[in-house]
Amino acid sequence: MREPDFTLSAGPSPASARTLAALGSPIIDDHDPVFRDAFRRTEAKVGQVFGTENEIILMQGEAILGLEAAARALVRPGMHVLNLASGVFGKGMGYWLKAFGAQLHEIETSYAEAIDPAAVAAYLDEHPEIELLSVVHCETPSGTFNDCAAIGPIARSRGVLTLVDCVASLGGMALDPDAWQLDVCVAGPQKCLAGPSGMSLVAVSAPAWAAIEGNPAAPRASFLSLLDWREQWHGRGQFPYTPSVSEVYGVAAACDQLLAEGVRASIARHETAARACRAGVAAMGLQIWPASEAIAAASVTAIAVPDGLDHQAVRDHARARYGVMLADGQGAGNLVRIGHMGPTASGLNPAIGLMAIGRSLADLGVPVRTGDGVEAALAVLAAAARD
Amino acid sequence: MREPDFTLSAGPSPASARTLAALGSPIIDDHDPVFRDAFRRTEAKVGQVFGTENEIILMQGEAILGLEAAARALVRPGMHVLNLASGVFGKGMGYWLKAFGAQLHEIETSYAEAIDPAAVAAYLDEHPEIELLSVVHCETPSGTFNDCAAIGPIARSRGVLTLVDCVASLGGMALDPDAWQLDVCVAGPQKCLAGPSGMSLVAVSAPAWAAIEGNPAAPRASFLSLLDWREQWHGRGQFPYTPSVSEVYGVAAACDQLLAEGVRASIARHETAARACRAGVAAMGLQIWPASEAIAAASVTAIAVPDGLDHQAVRDHARARYGVMLADGQGAGNLVRIGHMGPTASGLNPAIGLMAIGRSLADLGVPVRTGDGVEAALAVLAAAARD
Amino acid sequence: MREPDFTLSAGPSPASARTLAALGSPIIDDHDPVFRDAFRRTEAKVGQVFGTENEIILMQGEAILGLEAAARALVRPGMHVLNLASGVFGKGMGYWLKAFGAQLHEIETSYAEAIDPAAVAAYLDEHPEIELLSVVHCETPSGTFNDCAAIGPIARSRGVLTLVDCVASLGGMALDPDAWQLDVCVAGPQKCLAGPSGMSLVAVSAPAWAAIEGNPAAPRASFLSLLDWREQWHGRGQFPYTPSVSEVYGVAAACDQLLAEGVRASIARHETAARACRAGVAAMGLQIWPASEAIAAASVTAIAVPDGLDHQAVRDHARARYGVMLADGQGAGNLVRIGHMGPTASGLNPAIGLMAIGRSLADLGVPVRTGDGVEAALAVLAAAARD
Amino acid sequence: MREPDFTLSAGPSPASARTLAALGSPIIDDHDPVFRDAFRRTEAKVGQVFGTENEIILMQGEAILGLEAAARALVRPGMHVLNLASGVFGKGMGYWLKAFGAQLHEIETSYAEAIDPAAVAAYLDEHPEIELLSVVHCETPSGTFNDCAAIGPIARSRGVLTLVDCVASLGGMALDPDAWQLDVCVAGPQKCLAGPSGMSLVAVSAPAWAAIEGNPAAPRASFLSLLDWREQWHGRGQFPYTPSVSEVYGVAAACDQLLAEGVRASIARHETAARACRAGVAAMGLQIWPASEAIAAASVTAIAVPDGLDHQAVRDHARARYGVMLADGQGAGNLVRIGHMGPTASGLNPAIGLMAIGRSLADLGVPVRTGDGVEAALAVLAAAARD
Repeated sequence: MREPDFTLSAGPSPASARTLAALGSPIIDDHDPVFRDAFRRTEAKVGQVFGTENEIILMQGEAILGLEAAARALVRPGMHVLNLASGVFGKGMGYWLKAFGAQLHEIETSYAEAIDPAAVAAYLDEHPEIELLSVVHCETPSGTFNDCAAIGPIARSRGVLTLVDCVASLGGMALDPDAWQLDVCVAGPQKCLAGPSGMSLVAVSAPAWAAIEGNPAAPRASFLSLLDWREQWHGRGQFPYTPSVSEVYGVAAACDQLLAEGVRASIARHETAARACRAGVAAMGLQIWPASEAIAAASVTAIAVPDGLDHQAVRDHARARYGVMLADGQGAGNLVRIGHMGPTASGLNPAIGLMAIGRSLADLGVPVRTGDGVEAALAVLAAAARD
Repeated sequence: MREPDFTLSAGPSPASARTLAALGSPIIDDHDPVFRDAFRRTEAKVGQVFGTENEIILMQGEAILGLEAAARALVRPGMHVLNLASGVFGKGMGYWLKAFGAQLHEIETSYAEAIDPAAVAAYLDEHPEIELLSVVHCETPSGTFNDCAAIGPIARSRGVLTLVDCVASLGGMALDPDAWQLDVCVAGPQKCLAGPSGMSLVAVSAPAWAAIEGNPAAPRASFLSLLDWREQWHGRGQFPYTPSVSEVYGVAAACDQLLAEGVRASIARHETAARACRAGVAAMGLQIWPASEAIAAASVTAIAVPDGLDHQAVRDHARARYGVMLADGQGAGNLVRIGHMGPTASGLNPAIGLMAIGRSLADLGVPVRTGDGVEAALAVLAAAARD
Repeated sequence: MREPDFTLSAGPSPASARTLAALGSPIIDDHDPVFRDAFRRTEAKVGQVFGTENEIILMQGEAILGLEAAARALVRPGMHVLNLASGVFGKGMGYWLKAFGAQLHEIETSYAEAIDPAAVAAYLDEHPEIELLSVVHCETPSGTFNDCAAIGPIARSRGVLTLVDCVASLGGMALDPDAWQLDVCVAGPQKCLAGPSGMSLVAVSAPAWAAIEGNPAAPRASFLSLLDWREQWHGRGQFPYTPSVSEVYGVAAACDQLLAEGVRASIARHETAARACRAGVAAMGLQIWPASEAIAAASVTAIAVPDGLDHQAVRDHARARYGVMLADGQGAGNLVRIGHMGPTASGLNPAIGLMAIGRSLADLGVPVRTGDGVEAALAVLAAAARD
Repeated sequence: MREPDFTLSAGPSPASARTLAALGSPIIDDHDPVFRDAFRRTEAKVGQVFGTENEIILMQGEAILGLEAAARALVRPGMHVLNLASGVFGKGMGYWLKAFGAQLHEIETSYAEAIDPAAVAAYLDEHPEIELLSVVHCETPSGTFNDCAAIGPIARSRGVLTLVDCVASLGGMALDPDAWQLDVCVAGPQKCLAGPSGMSLVAVSAPAWAAIEGNPAAPRASFLSLLDWREQWHGRGQFPYTPSVSEVYGVAAACDQLLAEGVRASIARHETAARACRAGVAAMGLQIWPASEAIAAASVTAIAVPDGLDHQAVRDHARARYGVMLADGQGAGNLVRIGHMGPTASGLNPAIGLMAIGRSLADLGVPVRTGDGVEAALAVLAAAARD
């Protein structure tokens, strides 16, 4: 089998040529002053992309590393933690929090819904023992998002720290750690930044550092340690371990491009792509997976697979016949996803995903008129371009 | 400051153009069948480079991740472990073993020496409670190596598992996990393979798996978990987390080149480079750091800095004036190192390192005749080429 | 303005990542034995792509160089030459032939038509003084092609040499220089091979060489000389001038990919793309530029722009609003072209071109239903995939 | 055979990673506004590198194309032309001038000498019928240069146009077309710019254009035509033929790097490399080929091969045994050349060439002490670094 013509899945996103060139640029020693400067500049760029004044930690390893590292750093055994579980990743975080010793509280919804901020406020008011709240901003597997702009201040005003999974939102959806009062934000470069997948981008607030430093269970002298990076690299100028030079260059290049475009412009582009995608889905007589457009993510559109068909069959068909790689729901349900992240949130890309899904469904016996979906998506793009 | 003309440090080594191209090749989704095949083929290649039948686990993160993961997986709290500490990395492993709950035994030497296998045998005979032995094959910081060919069978014959740090030897020094009866070997691609630094290459024997599976403290559901990779990826075909597509391609390309050359030929090339380097050092009136040539590594030559000078001054001078990046001893002593790893173990590269060090010393007031060193190194290369 | 999301013009085609990596691979000296071997292997590959036993000459410079070189080499002042002019490039060749001293005969048609082979036979029978016939296989600007399978034998049987411009057909349309008895075929790598644009790929038959060697006006000691390459490179192993190492590597990589796919499979893929494209055009109520499907090229589809609109406005709109780069007719008429060459002849690419044109026309006030075009194109692709 | 470890020949020079990345960047259509802007910016950069206000023409093809194009454009049949022949390229230009119809005058020297400007002045005074003078700035094959700073004004003051081959001097040797009153300068990117070899960089003065436009023999409608580029591209915004997108990007990147360093700094770097090289040659008891250091080029050092040995044997040995690619004299004599062009004019590179030649000679029986040569070269570099 040859490589797909188009990858419209939910990350790793197809990196731009410029990012790929950076990934393939010469590897120098991480002790070299040129690299150390490059690393520091990359941290600064990531901070700009986050739009935060918080300290940036770059760990080498997919964002799941950063999430585990942050959870381990924050959770003091016995600590009461509220976990918001509106999707696969939120649910998974709950297992971790418990395993790391938390007294786990959870607000749960169907994976087609988002968490109601009012419910969070009420729960926290009833449970003043809670010290930490964990939330996933964009629940990629089901294409929904939680309203962190509301949840952050609710937590902060009650003295509760927040741990936010922004992996699939950074760069593609509105996110403002400082204004939203979010304490630890963890993202990855392989989604809306369309960078390599091997780094965790972590922004940590001063109150979060205080909690981490006071936590005897926080990892130290470990690959999982945020503190090592703070103390050894930021404190003494020594990397706790060799970062991947290639990945750092790749992340820097991805940030450069996002910053050159402008974070706001990038987000607007993702939102347009998502609207086009959803318009196409509706015009084909299909349904998006999220319960409403209001909670649909800007970086990925999850589409319910019509009854009688399995998502795997649809995706395999689209891949084999039309060379388009789409994503499944990673356990969230019988759905297929069109990612619009980074370069694939540009121009006609969403319509390529619609063509692949629509025609695959038609091939598999579902009477879908793909042309109507494309027409509707193009109408959204046309209107957006005029603005 | 611009990038160095030549990087002759002790890793990350300068990757070949072909490896860089692989690192910069398009990023596809890790769920795509094309990538999954590529990942499996990469595992097989790593196995060939190791020359082992043992199961290969590729973790995303510098080799320090693999070492921590392996140590955590193997160490059952209260287990008696013998650690061989002949250098910075060996010493560091001891701290970890203890932190992970081991009853630590240690045989220690000066960092210019290697561990005597006879002492290991004697120690194990006196301490039948020991279940695990940890050893660093090549102690990069001080340029020495331990005789794993002897130590492995000593341990196996006494029912002791071995955890071997081969980070700086794989591909550049003789290593035979199966014949040498080594249980867990951890290497990195960024040294003699001249690949990217973001992966841990781990080879695990059946007895080691048995011990790990029986260890309740072995990490599970964690970035540090060898078991996750075994059970989820090898067992169910699911990656426990997104690997870095770029790094995997880079590692595969590095292995391809090494296998095309032949592992034996590569090792011979490293050995020649090391001999040339040592001949040059001697001819310049300098001294290698290891107590004898017999324990000097083939992948890196550590050179004692003459009294009255600090290694930092020498290295800074070589970098600033002559554009050559050399390595320090990472705490092992007042030494500078010339790496000959991968491409830099080829041809005249070692002589470039000699020129940089020799002339820098001369500039700093040490009466060294660089020309004599170069002449001696070239004589070794000339003789080797005739063979 | 940023780069287009999709380039669907008529060449240079977007090169694959593998071809780009080859273009960016290290530059070695052209005198190095490694490069000389690579050059020879590239010649052999080009011969395989052509499917010919004729001698291959690779000149450094866009195919226009090869065409000029071939025409200058073949035309003896005063020689009678029949030029077939069914498009912009055919017409242009006539000016050259005359300028180089030919007694020019011409069969001309509208640029929406192809030359009738019967007319060629008749003309040659009436004009036995003609020694050379010049024909363009694929007239890219107007999207038509001439039936070289018929014309070649007609010429050969009458002792007339043929000079064939295959620039836009090689690799994407049926072409068989030996069976079709074509004497000098000139192609470029930047069309259906999706290679770099800086080389001329020339295949020369033995009778053609005899004529060239006997032509005192054939260039010698010139950048335009085919004879220099034959005598100096093939004869004495010396390049007449430094080839571009990068371009040679790029051409080799492009050939490798085409040969791995298979020339026939590649052609079939181009033909399917063209059929899908034409079906879409018709379903949108538009018209292809060629007078009939029978003479429509497989590598590019020319589409008549509806009355009242200028092609430039349509193309500028598609480029600015939808990020799709389309081609004009280079003077052939008021038309826009969708190229399907190399990678863009794969999968859903033609439908992207249809979306860009359809929606642009709609935006500009032409009542086109793009969805119908996409639907029709997908139906062709779906049917083809089932075969 | 594998690729050389070091290419220290006389061009194509090893391009930097950044230039290679540019060569491997995505190919877009040459009609795209983004490319057209890039082309114009590249012309401007080339003008800055030349340091001239003259019009820049970029032709696609190795510099030999630009030289042929310029000579054909300038030579009116019957025109009296003075050719300065102090090397292989100068001599070759004479054949061309004659072939293009010139009444050829020639001042010739041994290929170890340069032309005396006073002799040029005297010759021109005696031959007022001469309208054009042709000179090679750096005679790469023999490592000498002609004093164009003196020759230019001598010609201009006598109303004689100049055609200057700067292929191997641009960017590495002092060159000032405007102050030196040079009319047509032709260079290539593959020497001191370390770019790709497939472009001709031509700077044309107003008086030269006047002569060309008035020359009925100047090529038009040809790959060899400077006028096409002026009239079609600069006049009407249309490329006369498709430029190689890859090469243009490569040239732009090479210029960017040279301009970032500064042309003067680059020249100083080349001069230091040349001095180090010559010092090494002398210290090894060898002789440079040029009759004196005063006429030795800064971009390449030609070294006489000791009696009894042939340059081919020395070069083959250096290449096979030590992985170093050196250059021959292209017919200028029994010599080997170390190129120091672009990146290879940096740092310890010249000493690598000395090691390869010295040790190869020793292996072949010539009693050369390479160490002395390296020592002497390093002394020059050390002194230069202190300045």
